[in-house]
Amino acid sequence: MKHADLIIAGGTILPMTVSSESIIDGAIAITADRICDIGDRTTLLNTWSASEIIDATGCVVMPGLINGHTHAAMTCFRGLADDLGLEDWLHHYIFPAEARHVTCEFVYWGTLLACIEMMRSGTTTFCDMYFFEDAAAQAATTAGMRCLLGGVLIDFPSPNTKTPAEGLAYTQSLIEKWNNHDLVNLVIQPHSLYTCSPDLLMKGKKLADTYNLPMGVHYLETAAEFALLHTKFKEGPTAFLKERGFLSERFIAFHGVHMTPRDIEIFAASGASVIHNPESNMKLASGVAPVPAMLNAGMNVGIGTDGCASNNNLDMLQEIDTTAKLHKVQLRDPTVMKAHTVLDMATRMGAHALCLNGVTGELRVGLKADLIMIDFNKPHLTPVYNAFSHIVYAAQGSDVDTVIINGRVVMRNRRLLTVDEYEVMAKVNELAEKIKKSLNLGIVKHEQ
Amino acid sequence: MKHADLIIAGGTILPMTVSSESIIDGAIAITADRICDIGDRTTLLNTWSASEIIDATGCVVMPGLINGHTHAAMTCFRGLADDLGLEDWLHHYIFPAEARHVTCEFVYWGTLLACIEMMRSGTTTFCDMYFFEDAAAQAATTAGMRCLLGGVLIDFPSPNTKTPAEGLAYTQSLIEKWNNHDLVNLVIQPHSLYTCSPDLLMKGKKLADTYNLPMGVHYLETAAEFALLHTKFKEGPTAFLKERGFLSERFIAFHGVHMTPRDIEIFAASGASVIHNPESNMKLASGVAPVPAMLNAGMNVGIGTDGCASNNNLDMLQEIDTTAKLHKVQLRDPTVMKAHTVLDMATRMGAHALCLNGVTGELRVGLKADLIMIDFNKPHLTPVYNAFSHIVYAAQGSDVDTVIINGRVVMRNRRLLTVDEYEVMAKVNELAEKIKKSLNLGIVKHEQ
Repeated sequence: MKHADLIIAGGTILPMTVSSESIIDGAIAITADRICDIGDRTTLLNTWSASEIIDATGCVVMPGLINGHTHAAMTCFRGLADDLGLEDWLHHYIFPAEARHVTCEFVYWGTLLACIEMMRSGTTTFCDMYFFEDAAAQAATTAGMRCLLGGVLIDFPSPNTKTPAEGLAYTQSLIEKWNNHDLVNLVIQPHSLYTCSPDLLMKGKKLADTYNLPMGVHYLETAAEFALLHTKFKEGPTAFLKERGFLSERFIAFHGVHMTPRDIEIFAASGASVIHNPESNMKLASGVAPVPAMLNAGMNVGIGTDGCASNNNLDMLQEIDTTAKLHKVQLRDPTVMKAHTVLDMATRMGAHALCLNGVTGELRVGLKADLIMIDFNKPHLTPVYNAFSHIVYAAQGSDVDTVIINGRVVMRNRRLLTVDEYEVMAKVNELAEKIKKSLNLGIVKHEQ
Repeated sequence: MKHADLIIAGGTILPMTVSSESIIDGAIAITADRICDIGDRTTLLNTWSASEIIDATGCVVMPGLINGHTHAAMTCFRGLADDLGLEDWLHHYIFPAEARHVTCEFVYWGTLLACIEMMRSGTTTFCDMYFFEDAAAQAATTAGMRCLLGGVLIDFPSPNTKTPAEGLAYTQSLIEKWNNHDLVNLVIQPHSLYTCSPDLLMKGKKLADTYNLPMGVHYLETAAEFALLHTKFKEGPTAFLKERGFLSERFIAFHGVHMTPRDIEIFAASGASVIHNPESNMKLASGVAPVPAMLNAGMNVGIGTDGCASNNNLDMLQEIDTTAKLHKVQLRDPTVMKAHTVLDMATRMGAHALCLNGVTGELRVGLKADLIMIDFNKPHLTPVYNAFSHIVYAAQGSDVDTVIINGRVVMRNRRLLTVDEYEVMAKVNELAEKIKKSLNLGIVKHEQ
């Protein structure tokens, strides 16, 4: 009899590997931070003993979801300003609020609140772009979440760095501090091709190459950006990225809403990924990314929620439901973006985009134990004909019962074990009171 | 001191009347089935005493949501067949399953499961179209839900009526049995203009006129239906409906996806309503209904979930989120379909569509006490800047804490008080086992 630290026994396992078969009445053994066995429950329990056995009967067990793009600390701005034109929204609400209120403390508490929301809805890894990311890394490790993060590289002064050089130095310091942490992974993040000079982009790339890190950038999110970049780069922005050597498996484009067929071809050939953020793209009216065409071309596409100022939630289960439905109606074809495909995007392909393939995003021996249990014993999940379509079209964040990250149980029976959520909510509410006062907002308006 | 049966005290009240102002720290007094006072908490508690006082501190109190179109019993088919072409889906799954399995018992338990799901996610009234609707009425009254229902009028044999004449007779019997029930309201429901002869439509209309009932019909849901009806009716289907006198405040078109500007003009002038079902229209790839144009023209538009075979849930909070986001991206305008507008559609305008204006859908004195409390003390609802946008873009069905229908508390602290949900789930699971066997379905497939 071999000994594991933790066994999850019973329920239906969806391993989400390339060749995965569902395992009905399965079990998973975990030692330290990794999966050491997975298979039929009876067989596994005859092979392994463990100090703790979690009963997953009636649940679906699957890899934790990967939120491929967010601005976690913006939970503090959730619902601050909605249903507005982009310019009005940015210049009258988001930019003034960021200039006045974004500090280390803001980022720590805002990111911690984001981690709570994400864990409670089944996300185990997130890729974050914001300011004061050292505080974000501290929040993620406090919560026990896996993350990929880096400072924002930008030509303009930001709340925590005044010049591009300072931005690069800050990112370098993050790498030096966090690069060997088990939960924290680094990414070089120039804000976009319209807010970064080619010089800053190249310096970012040098940093990424030196440390063998991925690089992520907002890319072709809006029609205005598309027009701007086609004026700025005569050969087109994707050709620029290709010629300068940016495109590889270590390149992540956030959004990619306005990518052309030629852009898709170039990305597919290079191995670069896109993170699709359908709800933010819908709410800000940016457009519908050509995701089915990307997948057909062999591109790797993950899914993200974007920040809480433009969604206004971090619930990946809702995001995958929207992903599936949006593209069906967009292409007038109910057979595109099947449930299994969008689940792949939110797990295995998401991990691949973040250069965490072979680390997380699948359930197989040797990978980190990042997994969730979804309780199917609910009225709105009754009856069960197909677990995949149930997770995509019927399950909600609140159906996630138990979450394990890096072998550690961070939520059990919907109770968080790593953070005091009421303390975090109180801290964010305090910050919000100051924001309301400075922007002259009431709590509830009839209409805005 | 006046005496009420029940007082809801504290929290923010969103009355959703035409001229509504939010009431911060409000209260509502209920006597028997009706609201007898609403206003500031301190003032109301100085005027009224009650046998029971429910503390709504930290909650938003609003009218229960109106699900304007569903096929409730189809919960039994939830996830039976997804991501398929319409013909494949109908002819290989839905029609065979209906022919073999839809009975009185099926409709009773399936509708009861639907009522449980709807109440748990804040819906207090639903408009249902299915077979054996006497059993649906029994389920709704058992659950304590308000409903609008009627048999399906159709030219073909259905699971419970073999001829159009039988369908009319069945509808007549429903009217005679249920017309005076406090919770049950009747609607005449020809299936569609392509499955009903003009003769059957006119006979249905006569019944509606005799009893002063609304008439609801699937209308212009798909491009194929649009083409078919423009062949069948030389003057166009909307002109046909207008000329024969169908269009009035008692006419409800379900879907209206392919309505033209001229159709919208005619509907607006007549007072007829549309029920918008965005998630079903997306999942079946039917198209995007021109809802902003309808509202601009002064039309009344409610929101529905459609049935669980094409959504696959009955969660109106998710439906309103999708409604707001879908039209923003469709029109590339983030300012259309504001949070307050879609909430209006899901409450006041939904009640209006079902001819239940002045009965439910708003919180004001004299109306039925149909209301819900949404608990805002949650990580994903922190902080709060705007209650309307929070409900639309951030709240989930599982945030609904307490539901009151017709003055009766049917859910308290998320515990259902009218039905044993585990018994209902067990009954539906039994039915589903038979369906799986007859259709040769496994429980979990890799991909379909």
